[in-house]
Amino acid sequence: VSAPFGCWIDGVPTDRLRVPDRGLEFGDGLYETMAAVAGRVRLLERHLVRLAHGCERLGIKPPEPSLLRAEIAAAAAVPGAAVVKLVLTRGAGGHGYAPAPRLAATRVLTASGLRARPAEWWHAGVVVRRCDLRLGDQPALAGLKHLNRLEQVLARAEWTDPAIAEGLLLDVHGRMVCGTMTNVFAVFDGVAVTPRLDRCGVAGVMRGALLDALPRAGVPVAEREVRPADLAGASEVFLTNALIGAWPVREFEGVTFAPGTVVRHAQALVTEW
Amino acid sequence: VSAPFGCWIDGVPTDRLRVPDRGLEFGDGLYETMAAVAGRVRLLERHLVRLAHGCERLGIKPPEPSLLRAEIAAAAAVPGAAVVKLVLTRGAGGHGYAPAPRLAATRVLTASGLRARPAEWWHAGVVVRRCDLRLGDQPALAGLKHLNRLEQVLARAEWTDPAIAEGLLLDVHGRMVCGTMTNVFAVFDGVAVTPRLDRCGVAGVMRGALLDALPRAGVPVAEREVRPADLAGASEVFLTNALIGAWPVREFEGVTFAPGTVVRHAQALVTEW
Repeated sequence: VSAPFGCWIDGVPTDRLRVPDRGLEFGDGLYETMAAVAGRVRLLERHLVRLAHGCERLGIKPPEPSLLRAEIAAAAAVPGAAVVKLVLTRGAGGHGYAPAPRLAATRVLTASGLRARPAEWWHAGVVVRRCDLRLGDQPALAGLKHLNRLEQVLARAEWTDPAIAEGLLLDVHGRMVCGTMTNVFAVFDGVAVTPRLDRCGVAGVMRGALLDALPRAGVPVAEREVRPADLAGASEVFLTNALIGAWPVREFEGVTFAPGTVVRHAQALVTEW
Repeated sequence: VSAPFGCWIDGVPTDRLRVPDRGLEFGDGLYETMAAVAGRVRLLERHLVRLAHGCERLGIKPPEPSLLRAEIAAAAAVPGAAVVKLVLTRGAGGHGYAPAPRLAATRVLTASGLRARPAEWWHAGVVVRRCDLRLGDQPALAGLKHLNRLEQVLARAEWTDPAIAEGLLLDVHGRMVCGTMTNVFAVFDGVAVTPRLDRCGVAGVMRGALLDALPRAGVPVAEREVRPADLAGASEVFLTNALIGAWPVREFEGVTFAPGTVVRHAQALVTEW
C-alpha cells in the first residue's frame, strides 16, 4: 500500500486526526483493509459484518451502516483507488483505559494504490518462512482485526529478503495459526484445512468467503489443528487475504509444492467477487 | 487525566496528527505517562530509560535524548500541568506491517491535569477486584509500555462501580501479574514481593523505583510468583504507578488489609522524588 491519495476523517477530507484518540493511545479500535476493483469494494458485505462483529465484541459503538457504506463507496470511487482502508477507533475520551460513556467512534478512511508484487506469486506461488515469534493466546481478542498489531510488526521484522513473501506464525503450543498478513490453507486428502482462530490470529474476510464458497465448488473444508510438520503431507498450501486473494505456496522449509486445483478454484472465485 | 491543555506533535504545538501513522495503524509504539510536580517531572530519568529500552526492543529509532528532555520540560512547565504523556510511535511509512527503513519516530506530547480521586485512597486504601480477563503470554512484549493495550481496556470495562479503584489481572496460568494501570506488591514476612513481568504485564516506573529504593530503606524486595489466594497471607498489599505513587489495598475478595509500614515507606519515598 503506497501513501494514500485520499483520506477522510469522520467524513471530512483531511489527513489530520485530532489527538488524543483512543486508537492512538491504546490501539483501541478495529480496521478493515478492502480491495477496490473498478470502483467497487470486493466482499464489502463481509467486511461490514466483520467490523460490526468486532464492535460488538469490543463494546465500540458502531457507526451508522448507511453512513459507512456511503463513505466507503466514495473512497473506492477515487480514480486509481485499489485499497480502501477503514480504521475505526472507540473515539476520544475517558479516564485512562476506562472510556467515557457513549463515545462516538472515529472513522479514518484512506484510499490508496496497490503495492506492486510479482505476477508469479499468483501463478507459480510464493516462498514462505516460519516466524520465531509465537502468537500469544488471547481468546478475548482472537479472530478480531483490531489495532493491536505489534505481534505482526515484530514477526514481519524477522526477515528482509524480498523473495520471501510471507512468514507463518505458530501459537505457543506449536500449532500453525496464520501468516503475518494472510490466512493459511493446506489441502489434505482433498479437504481444504485452515486453523481455528479461537485463541489467536485474525479471521480474514477472504478466508471466511472461501470457507463458505469452496464447498459449493465441490471442495470440502475444515477448521482444525495444523502443525508445521503436517505441511509436508499437504497436496497444496495457499495463503489468502482480502487484497491478494490467494497465493499458492511454492516452498516452505525445504518442502516444495505445486499450485493445486483448490487454489486455482479459490483464485477463480476471487475474480467473480 | 482530563482533556489536555497542551499538545505538541514533533515539537510543534498542535493536536492534529497526520495519518496514516503506525501508532494508529498498528499500535506500533510506546508511551510514558509522567507525573509533573511543580513544573518538574518525577522520575524523569527512569521514564527516559524505560522508553529507550522499549525502543531498543521494538526496533524503533529513539529521538535525540536532549530533544525529548527539552520538550518534556516545556510540557511540564505549562501552568497546572500534572500529567505529561508522551506517545512515541515508529512513525509513518512502510508496506503494511513492514516499516520503511530508518523511519523517524513520531512524538505526541500532552500536558493535562490530574484526575481527582478520593484522598482516602492514599490514606485508608482502595477496594480492588479480580478481573476475568487473563493476560496472554507474550515474552516479546512483556514489561513494555507499548501502545497495544486492548487487554487493559477490556479488563477495565469489566466494572463501573466507582468505589472499586482497580482490578487485578492474572495470567493464563493463574498467577497474579498487575492491575489494569498499576503494579502490585504484597508483603510476606517483611519482604515486599511483586510478580515477575517476563511473560506479560507492564514494568512500571514506580515499581522499578521502589524495587531499587525499598531495600535501601531496610525493606527487602523480591520478584516472584504470587497467586490471588496468597494475598490472604500478606501483611499488606499495595498498588503503584507513576501518577498515584502508592495506594494501600484495603479490600480484595472479602479479605481486608490495613495500610502497613511498607506502603508508608513507599509513599514517603514518592514525596522525595
